[in-house]
Amino acid sequence: MRVRKKPWAKKELETNPHIVQECTKYKGRWAEYFGNDAPIYVEIGCGKGGFITQNAAQYPEANFIGIERQSSVIAVAARKAGDGLPNLALICYDAAKLADIFEVGEITRLYINFCDPWPKKRYAKRRLTHRGFLQSYREIFGEKGEIFFKTDNRGLFEFSLNEFCADHWELSNISLDLHHSDWEGNIMTEYEKKFSEQGMPIYRLEARCSK
Amino acid sequence: MRVRKKPWAKKELETNPHIVQECTKYKGRWAEYFGNDAPIYVEIGCGKGGFITQNAAQYPEANFIGIERQSSVIAVAARKAGDGLPNLALICYDAAKLADIFEVGEITRLYINFCDPWPKKRYAKRRLTHRGFLQSYREIFGEKGEIFFKTDNRGLFEFSLNEFCADHWELSNISLDLHHSDWEGNIMTEYEKKFSEQGMPIYRLEARCSK
Repeated sequence: MRVRKKPWAKKELETNPHIVQECTKYKGRWAEYFGNDAPIYVEIGCGKGGFITQNAAQYPEANFIGIERQSSVIAVAARKAGDGLPNLALICYDAAKLADIFEVGEITRLYINFCDPWPKKRYAKRRLTHRGFLQSYREIFGEKGEIFFKTDNRGLFEFSLNEFCADHWELSNISLDLHHSDWEGNIMTEYEKKFSEQGMPIYRLEARCSK
Repeated sequence: MRVRKKPWAKKELETNPHIVQECTKYKGRWAEYFGNDAPIYVEIGCGKGGFITQNAAQYPEANFIGIERQSSVIAVAARKAGDGLPNLALICYDAAKLADIFEVGEITRLYINFCDPWPKKRYAKRRLTHRGFLQSYREIFGEKGEIFFKTDNRGLFEFSLNEFCADHWELSNISLDLHHSDWEGNIMTEYEKKFSEQGMPIYRLEARCSK
């Protein structure tokens, strides 16, 4: 996802209250940051932030953190969020480095939505559901945790099912056509809206691990 | 799958050496029937027998049993098999009653290919991958066993993924488009040939259970 450099982005990143500057300094201290002990749910690659922002608005009893590497994109997310969501934090950082940001056991759920499918085999290790990543998520979760995963890419979903199974995660709510399933409460990402309007099926699963 | 009543069917069922008359009397004695201790692999609903017959021809080191409820259909399978496959048995019986035919631990693999999807929810219990069936397969397997499952029905595959996961089977080689995957050695059923020629994706998985 690309967003043209916006002239207002720099200011948004510096002044929007949801943007966390120097996020690594909150490692182990996110409860302090939010001012409560509510569970912390993290979206990796939150893009323009529609999904994580709507979650924060809809579920005030949890804390939500969106991570996005591209500053020009997360600036859009920040602007969209406004300033009325005390349970929302936005971080501009490489989501592959979760251990820089979180202490073991500090987060209990990850959302991975429409990540890059890296279709070429030689790049399989870059897919965010590759078992290398799954093991790093498992380490961050500690006692237990869950991943909610969505994609429109059949090949990536197939790969992900096999990776989760090989790494012994417990799967549930697997959907091969989310928008025509019984599963309720779906919150769409910007990307999902666009692709599902074209009639593409959306795939989704929940995966849980425990020690 | 329906086959018009064939005038030769009755004779084929009575005389073809692959057809097992009174199959329940071999319960616990299938090794004796085959004359060896090779593993026994069973296809539930073998239809016209293309899949099980080709397996028997290709893998002489295992024994194969095809079960089909419709006598006019299994007669076609018998005729197709000819009489040159000592490791093939064909049974006309209700595959839902495996415990009538096999002792616990007597079989180690089940093939379920393109079974009736029973798309209406109120008939979900009739689907051969409903957890009720999975538990009956588990009981027949005893120590351990595996199911190789194929379908062209996305809804049934989604349902099956969830049922297998809920019942704690270990899944592997999950394919959402078998004929365009890397998985090799696929043996097609008659139904599969027809539907894949129409460009429909074929779904497949392997599921393993152990005590």
